[in-house]
Amino acid sequence: MDLKTKALNMHRSYKGKMEMVSKVPIESMVDLSLAYSPGVAEPCLEIKNNSSAIYEYTMKGNLVGVVTDGTAVLGLGDIGPKAALPVMEGKGILLKRFANVDAFPVCLDTKNVDEIVQIVKALSPTFGAINLEDISAPRCFEIEDRLRKELDIPVFHDDQHGTAIVVGAGLQNAVKLVRKEIHSLKLVINGAGAAGMAILRVLQQLGYQQIIMCDSTGIIYEGREEGMNPIKESIASITNPLGLRGSLKDAMVGADVFIGVSVANLLTKDIIDAMNDDSIVFALANPNPEIAYNLAKEWGVRVIATGRSDNPNQVNNVLAFPGIFRGALDVRATDINEEMKLAAVQAIASLIDEDELSEDYIIPDVFDERVVNAVAQAVSDAAIESGVSILFQAALK
Amino acid sequence: MDLKTKALNMHRSYKGKMEMVSKVPIESMVDLSLAYSPGVAEPCLEIKNNSSAIYEYTMKGNLVGVVTDGTAVLGLGDIGPKAALPVMEGKGILLKRFANVDAFPVCLDTKNVDEIVQIVKALSPTFGAINLEDISAPRCFEIEDRLRKELDIPVFHDDQHGTAIVVGAGLQNAVKLVRKEIHSLKLVINGAGAAGMAILRVLQQLGYQQIIMCDSTGIIYEGREEGMNPIKESIASITNPLGLRGSLKDAMVGADVFIGVSVANLLTKDIIDAMNDDSIVFALANPNPEIAYNLAKEWGVRVIATGRSDNPNQVNNVLAFPGIFRGALDVRATDINEEMKLAAVQAIASLIDEDELSEDYIIPDVFDERVVNAVAQAVSDAAIESGVSILFQAALK
Repeated sequence: MDLKTKALNMHRSYKGKMEMVSKVPIESMVDLSLAYSPGVAEPCLEIKNNSSAIYEYTMKGNLVGVVTDGTAVLGLGDIGPKAALPVMEGKGILLKRFANVDAFPVCLDTKNVDEIVQIVKALSPTFGAINLEDISAPRCFEIEDRLRKELDIPVFHDDQHGTAIVVGAGLQNAVKLVRKEIHSLKLVINGAGAAGMAILRVLQQLGYQQIIMCDSTGIIYEGREEGMNPIKESIASITNPLGLRGSLKDAMVGADVFIGVSVANLLTKDIIDAMNDDSIVFALANPNPEIAYNLAKEWGVRVIATGRSDNPNQVNNVLAFPGIFRGALDVRATDINEEMKLAAVQAIASLIDEDELSEDYIIPDVFDERVVNAVAQAVSDAAIESGVSILFQAALK
Repeated sequence: MDLKTKALNMHRSYKGKMEMVSKVPIESMVDLSLAYSPGVAEPCLEIKNNSSAIYEYTMKGNLVGVVTDGTAVLGLGDIGPKAALPVMEGKGILLKRFANVDAFPVCLDTKNVDEIVQIVKALSPTFGAINLEDISAPRCFEIEDRLRKELDIPVFHDDQHGTAIVVGAGLQNAVKLVRKEIHSLKLVINGAGAAGMAILRVLQQLGYQQIIMCDSTGIIYEGREEGMNPIKESIASITNPLGLRGSLKDAMVGADVFIGVSVANLLTKDIIDAMNDDSIVFALANPNPEIAYNLAKEWGVRVIATGRSDNPNQVNNVLAFPGIFRGALDVRATDINEEMKLAAVQAIASLIDEDELSEDYIIPDVFDERVVNAVAQAVSDAAIESGVSILFQAALK
């Protein structure tokens, strides 16, 4: 049976992947009187008198809302909120499986940014955190920015930051392996969407300085006229310090690192040949990467990472988001800030010792059981140190 | 340990009562590739091409959104959406326990009727049905009416209809027991809120004709000036055929049935004494009824039902709503209409055979395992017969 048939059969036989289960017994009138009327009035009154008691008496503190409008689902594009539901259920069960975080899919039948912000705010009493998922750029940036400002619970756009964190971790290890200096490296990021923007931000915070971003028009530079928008203007102003112009191929001349969040089979032999020695390629287009693993090896790429589970070095967000939410919820963080994201990068990278590092092992395995705890602990610590933990807000004062 | 301490301890030790659980294993890369990327793209595409496939491949078809704004929670009033969460979780686990229906709490931080309608509409892709809960009157009527019109999934306000259905079932059996004729009975309903209105509607459909409704001002009649509003005007126009005026006590002279959805300890001995022989009293104020069970018996009430689990004849919505949602979801009903509600009334009433009926057994026990199946079957059948089942829409054509 092929993957398609198997996947359809599995989803059909279970009618979806998630169910809501009671944690308490309901087998007697006493059980009923505690879990429901009249006993349930007691936690209600506690919360009415002190709203933070909601974390003590309800599931809120362990619950993430997985919010989408279905506009940028997987590589499928704008398939709508109904067709997005299988992905959101999937995200939910991954959070449960890897980090014991409860999650619920919120598939919104609106694409209006103001409405999405308003609705998520109205829903926020139930949730301890919000994960934005598969919302198209540039709308996702505004939605995330506004919700982070207006909500008192963390808001995280996994398609941006989850990907960026795992790329950052893998790149740290790849650079260590090839013994190059971060400051002297030339990097090309191809794709200026949500993931590309977030990767750029993480890499700049990690100290990478010579980054060139490309889109389908080519290199993004200050003064370019074709295909620009406010976000690309800002990219131009903080990247490409030498003011390079031209095509992706022009950008790749002498590049040490290529990071693609773009389209399949884009990297031809002449582009690869134009790269520096000991080249590093993150080819993250899904399901088919910018260059196939075997071809990259054949053409001399030293370290190649993809999004595929059947290749080594899989860049899989599941290495990041479960531990990040676990860590944020554990200390009741009000935000998932840059400090917490960088802590997650270092936590993932540091799971591979220097003597274990190899061309085919720069990123831990998805089922490496150390990952979630390492990430959660690092994220909790960073939340406390950066002053966004409600539970430990006085720790450093 | 008292109930309060026990209830708080239970809620605190479990941190709420509900969790989200995966129905599928995630223990290997193959599992991951089926439940998430890349396999999950297949059900997404099926749903994109045919939106009703969402019922095949996701949890939607078994999932109820339990929606509140926290304005009328239990007997506690407007305690807000956060303090309402323990009740909504409770409702959710009852749906799971009694009918294997998944449910999720949606506690909305807005009291604006337009916004609530808009938000629930935007959320509807994820849900197979909506249960409105603990929303204050008269706002709940408008919200329910508009959502029933505008959504393609069933919308049910349990505080109205759940209560009304169980009252209707109990009353059918009580009247049978005392051997009176429905058409000749005089009924007084005290309380013109959400539950009172719904009880009125069900009883009129069951054939009760001489119904007098009272509020805190007294009998509601056409032309009354004090404390009226459009809803009470409509009550006045369809009840009280003799145009009685005066107090609750005036209404109760010669009454056969009293149904209270009002306040504790309202029924004094002189009011009870004014009732007909073989009187029937449903005293449903929570947690303390309009008259205590023992006092009612002492003062000569023949059949007394309350909302309390420590008295016989408990009017408990859990007898109705789990089976109603089960039945509606099973046939993919687009509505929970009057036919389905009346079918639930008869299903609950008919579980007690005529020779089992007694003053203390007019309503089945909450844990009577026959209830949910009987109600679900009756509701499914009524949905099909009334033409609101998507799965069986051609059945009668």
